Amino acid sequence: MRVDVLTLFPEMFDGVFSSSILGKARDKGLVSLNAINFRQYAGNKHGTVDDTPYGGGGGMVLKPEPIFTAVEDLLANRSDQESAPRIILMCPQGETFTQKKAEELSKEEHLIFICGHYEGYDERIRQHLVTDELSIGDYVLTGGELPAMVVVDSVVRLLPGVLGNETSAVTDSFSTGLLEYPHYTRPPEFRGMKVPDVLLSGHHANIEAWRRQQSLLRTLERRPELLEEAELTDKEREWLRKLQSDKS
Amino acid sequence: MRVDVLTLFPEMFDGVFSSSILGKARDKGLVSLNAINFRQYAGNKHGTVDDTPYGGGGGMVLKPEPIFTAVEDLLANRSDQESAPRIILMCPQGETFTQKKAEELSKEEHLIFICGHYEGYDERIRQHLVTDELSIGDYVLTGGELPAMVVVDSVVRLLPGVLGNETSAVTDSFSTGLLEYPHYTRPPEFRGMKVPDVLLSGHHANIEAWRRQQSLLRTLERRPELLEEAELTDKEREWLRKLQSDKS
Repeated sequence: MRVDVLTLFPEMFDGVFSSSILGKARDKGLVSLNAINFRQYAGNKHGTVDDTPYGGGGGMVLKPEPIFTAVEDLLANRSDQESAPRIILMCPQGETFTQKKAEELSKEEHLIFICGHYEGYDERIRQHLVTDELSIGDYVLTGGELPAMVVVDSVVRLLPGVLGNETSAVTDSFSTGLLEYPHYTRPPEFRGMKVPDVLLSGHHANIEAWRRQQSLLRTLERRPELLEEAELTDKEREWLRKLQSDKS
Repeated sequence: MRVDVLTLFPEMFDGVFSSSILGKARDKGLVSLNAINFRQYAGNKHGTVDDTPYGGGGGMVLKPEPIFTAVEDLLANRSDQESAPRIILMCPQGETFTQKKAEELSKEEHLIFICGHYEGYDERIRQHLVTDELSIGDYVLTGGELPAMVVVDSVVRLLPGVLGNETSAVTDSFSTGLLEYPHYTRPPEFRGMKVPDVLLSGHHANIEAWRRQQSLLRTLERRPELLEEAELTDKEREWLRKLQSDKS
């Protein structure tokens, strides 16, 4: 997979793209990760990429030309065999990013991210250039850089060969649609705080049952809306209904 | 404000903590941002901070000691005047982070973030050490580092003196509870794509009305659930109801 990020702050990506799983995926040649400063496409000697908004108001707006030109430059060297890239605008008005979207994007060959910074985008970028608009959540950030890193991380870890079996096993438990059960490791007692007996029992069926129950309980307490979509047995649904009616 | 991040990958934070708004806030002395490798608190010569889970299963689990000791070390030098810090665990099981939570955290003096990486956390960290568990969205990431950066960015930009008036004006429009209206800047025509006439008219009342309408429309199309919480006039509610009934 090839990932190009258009940004005014390419240096923000150095540490993230070279550490940990992303760094390893890159070293193995499984992904090419590039942060490109689109100021070089400003088309004027001052390197100006934004301007005041038509109609007045505060803030600056990213001009259409530098972004259009930068994307076209990235597309210029494509071969005929390559599929068209996804061109993704990171913005608060976008579709809320989810694991399902990460899985969808992980099947692509080429992703281009456009990151604005403090400014808004000229609407013509949104309407005539991008294929996707994504938001990572309902909070205000300084720019699209951190959101782009989040999307890249979640997508690249799904590429074949990136995660070892060991790590994938843990994190993929999210895909059951429930929150994870509690984890414990050594020591069995730490400052008086003990590991639950069942986990030390060696009785695998009991451990499985406890974990599933804890996962259901935690989801019920923290994110009950997730239970509607989760795959549950009739018995589990009955148990959860009983728990809820006991509470009320 | 003081922000300490406990992580096994402090180098991931270099570019982000020194660029743009975060870098400027740091340079102005408005915030102290520290990424600390908690491997130094491993308490063994191999620097081991994780171990296999009790009860079996894949993945590794962060041990309680290194995290407890690291947090205690951060608290050791506190003066009596300082309020107790918020100790925040970044994890998929946490409360979903929102702008409201960012505003709440921006009133604190000291935030400590705990970032796991691929592994789960020993449950005793969750139960007996942390004050908050936060998730930035429903997607799987390699670790808590990017989520911690996201929370730090959204919180620090709210601190007095960090944003100029110019930038705050744009981004704060999120706080109306609606998605932003479209922005346009020069040129008025780019490759045949034109700026809407109303924005070039200089008629401020019409521009205001157009923007509000676009904001409502975009929210209706993309995030209708936000309209339930937004502050709308009776006339606006009526208009939206009419639009919806026309569609169906």
